[in-house]
Amino acid sequence: MANKFKINKEKVFINGTSADVSVPFDKLTLSNNETILLPTVEGREPQANVLPTIKAPWIAQRKGSKAKTQMDYAKEGIITKEMEYVAIRESYACGDDMCFTPEMVAQEVAKGHAVIPANINHTECEPMIIGKKFSVKVNANIGASAVSSGYDEEIAKLKLALKHGADTVMDLSTGTDLMPLREAILRASPVPIGTVPIYEALDRVSGDSGALTWDVFKQVIIDQAKQGVDYFTIHAGLRRDLLEHAAKRLMGIVSRGGSIMASVMLRHDAENMAWEHFDELMEICHEYDVALSLGDGLRPGALKDACDEAQYGELKYIGELALRCREANVQCFIEGPGHVPLHRVYENQDLEDELCHEAPFYTLGPLVTDIAPGYDHITSAIGACNIAHRGTAMLCYVTPSEHLALPTPDDVKVGLITYKLAAHAADIAKGLKNAQLRDDMLSKARVEFRWYDQFALSLDPEHAYEVWKAQMPEDCAHEPSFCSMCGPRFCPMRLNRRLKAQYNVK
Amino acid sequence: MANKFKINKEKVFINGTSADVSVPFDKLTLSNNETILLPTVEGREPQANVLPTIKAPWIAQRKGSKAKTQMDYAKEGIITKEMEYVAIRESYACGDDMCFTPEMVAQEVAKGHAVIPANINHTECEPMIIGKKFSVKVNANIGASAVSSGYDEEIAKLKLALKHGADTVMDLSTGTDLMPLREAILRASPVPIGTVPIYEALDRVSGDSGALTWDVFKQVIIDQAKQGVDYFTIHAGLRRDLLEHAAKRLMGIVSRGGSIMASVMLRHDAENMAWEHFDELMEICHEYDVALSLGDGLRPGALKDACDEAQYGELKYIGELALRCREANVQCFIEGPGHVPLHRVYENQDLEDELCHEAPFYTLGPLVTDIAPGYDHITSAIGACNIAHRGTAMLCYVTPSEHLALPTPDDVKVGLITYKLAAHAADIAKGLKNAQLRDDMLSKARVEFRWYDQFALSLDPEHAYEVWKAQMPEDCAHEPSFCSMCGPRFCPMRLNRRLKAQYNVK
Repeated sequence: MANKFKINKEKVFINGTSADVSVPFDKLTLSNNETILLPTVEGREPQANVLPTIKAPWIAQRKGSKAKTQMDYAKEGIITKEMEYVAIRESYACGDDMCFTPEMVAQEVAKGHAVIPANINHTECEPMIIGKKFSVKVNANIGASAVSSGYDEEIAKLKLALKHGADTVMDLSTGTDLMPLREAILRASPVPIGTVPIYEALDRVSGDSGALTWDVFKQVIIDQAKQGVDYFTIHAGLRRDLLEHAAKRLMGIVSRGGSIMASVMLRHDAENMAWEHFDELMEICHEYDVALSLGDGLRPGALKDACDEAQYGELKYIGELALRCREANVQCFIEGPGHVPLHRVYENQDLEDELCHEAPFYTLGPLVTDIAPGYDHITSAIGACNIAHRGTAMLCYVTPSEHLALPTPDDVKVGLITYKLAAHAADIAKGLKNAQLRDDMLSKARVEFRWYDQFALSLDPEHAYEVWKAQMPEDCAHEPSFCSMCGPRFCPMRLNRRLKAQYNVK
Repeated sequence: MANKFKINKEKVFINGTSADVSVPFDKLTLSNNETILLPTVEGREPQANVLPTIKAPWIAQRKGSKAKTQMDYAKEGIITKEMEYVAIRESYACGDDMCFTPEMVAQEVAKGHAVIPANINHTECEPMIIGKKFSVKVNANIGASAVSSGYDEEIAKLKLALKHGADTVMDLSTGTDLMPLREAILRASPVPIGTVPIYEALDRVSGDSGALTWDVFKQVIIDQAKQGVDYFTIHAGLRRDLLEHAAKRLMGIVSRGGSIMASVMLRHDAENMAWEHFDELMEICHEYDVALSLGDGLRPGALKDACDEAQYGELKYIGELALRCREANVQCFIEGPGHVPLHRVYENQDLEDELCHEAPFYTLGPLVTDIAPGYDHITSAIGACNIAHRGTAMLCYVTPSEHLALPTPDDVKVGLITYKLAAHAADIAKGLKNAQLRDDMLSKARVEFRWYDQFALSLDPEHAYEVWKAQMPEDCAHEPSFCSMCGPRFCPMRLNRRLKAQYNVK
């Protein structure tokens, strides 16, 4: 029987120009002593159950400066510690040379083509960047609903999401008394946390959208900004004139936040309150450097509704808001679909680039067919990989339980691994320098029968090992030169050794 | 508690111009009495455990005619029963009008742009067509290896593959005494069966590639053709001059059949025997109307090896063979990769069209990253959906156990559903008339809270139902107007009713 599989992995830190910029990586050492740095989002070890507040000294040093957001600094030509940090983080696979310099990061942030979600009150957060020129990011949604799941489960899901590489996490909890759960999530999270504040606003008026006013909504936004939320999904582009188009759809409005905003507009016979009060909203976001994730309340919920007047009309309004953010030095990115047939996926990215002035795009899939509930992590990963290849900066994962139920912990894991592989495949297709290095090392391990190295380099080592082990003969060697797919006689890998010898190839 | 979920489904037959052309479909009736015909590959009920030999009378009627293959008939302008059958089958979702006429089928077959694998000795087979203009097909591989799996399991996998919609099945068994298992598979299969005869040839010489001569190989091909195998994978384009390029690769040769052919060439110091004896090979295939699946023995097994001289050099030789098949009225299609980064997937289809004169392309994925063993059904479905959108006619499924182990029954199921959703998404993207009908009906059921209809229309109804049920409150109504994702308060679907009322939309 093969020995128990164990990965030779240690946490290493790469330092910047000062000791307080120090970026953690997982350093993997293979059985042939080759090494590779792999990115990690798990951050630092908690001290007495508390995450180190790595950003606290950076922010303290900047006190008194007028500028407050990363975009302010970038436009002033100031390289922040956050920018230096993400440059190191993005360059992980590039060896000694930085493929992404802090200056390049600053330029992208200044132009509004990239975002570093970095609430000054989320000091535990290890900075990361969302932008077309950088590696594709993956967001994982967690959150309790009134029907399902509780407090401890959600913290466990956060940890699970981090283990499997979530670059950001959205807390989409609905229900009552949401502040303490969010506080716990923020304090436990080394990645940026996003929320949809309208959920809590609706809860504060006991679910009565007729009582949901701007004052209530604004107070929620302030409270959450103070807690340290790094980005807010606000459906400010869902203007009232679009509702008529939404009403004609097969699926209408499928965004929860969008449907609340629509409900408020109908009940109050008024324009979208976030559109009306957008300056106030930006002021709060600027104060704490909360990034705005301009929500697509009219994202299509079925192929039939894709690319229609409702969706693209909203995108046009969102583009106007993106420009206003850029002028106000508020960081923002743009949410996208949804359900889109494959032949129209690129069109969505291209139109977003045009209408939203190349602000980063952040999509939910899109799903390329409606007929596979239970497998929508896959239907959506197909669309996600394509749209990321075209330029989408961040992908919101979809789990196998989408359309059916709240994700279980196993769904969180499967959803994340599915999206990490889609994001990675897109990085390769985008031509990111050295994105393929890990693939080549894994394939080399495969051809050389270094099974454990192959598993160690894969996105889910334990799972790969278990599948392989289950069918290997009990009495085979530690790392046998075949597997159960072909058996020893038919293994093509062994022919390759003769081939190389024959043609004198090293 | 919700009542047990049950699908209202019956088998119906659509007849052609004569009573002996009769195509089975699954007719689904929804709770609102809407109906839809869904394709089925499960064929007819066995009589006393024996499948009806529906093709036997068709072939008997044609006796004495000189022409033998579907391509012969097509070129002579004769519409066979097989062509009429597939025209009905492909038109399933088009309502009263046939979107694919028998004449169009004949034209595509005559040009060599489509193939109807139809060994005259596999009379149980319900005809199907593989071609760019038609719906994308999915092949499932089954087969025992010397290390793993046995006889009964493989027949069970065949049944499982049929249940989940495999359009063709390849028996890739390796080991000893393969004829009886193949006989059982053929007699139990209403879908075309493909094989890789070189596997059995190697077994007949006890694994000694030095003893593997054309005479041995030819006898295997004759024996399998007589049994009724509908298509043969033959790696005839893997010429000797390409081995030098293969030797330079990271992964070398990863095709089992390709590695055997290479091994024989090296041992005998000779050209590829199938290339040398291609006329004899075509003669056998013509005799029984076996389609040739021209195998890509040099398909890339890693991203690093994609689109290299070895792969494209072989494709060029295969293109020459495809022309010879076309002249000899032997039906053929072309096997493709493998591992290909997303940005080069379209290039593979386009080059195949050019070099192989638009013979149907049949690909294994391709996988768009190497780093996700255990999830390679997904990495490959991304490539598969893209290449099918571009024109690939048939997709060979990849299961979650690819690269690690032989697929378990659950792997077969998951692999198939993954590929069915990719093929369907490609059909929609290709603009096939009415491909989206099922999606629209499912989405309509979703917005109207007809949960059971939603499940019934999905690719895996039982699984969707189980996921949904697991989180619903025990005491909820039969079909509650919410689910556990959002709970009752946040359900956007309910807002849509008010929206339609507000804007007077029916």
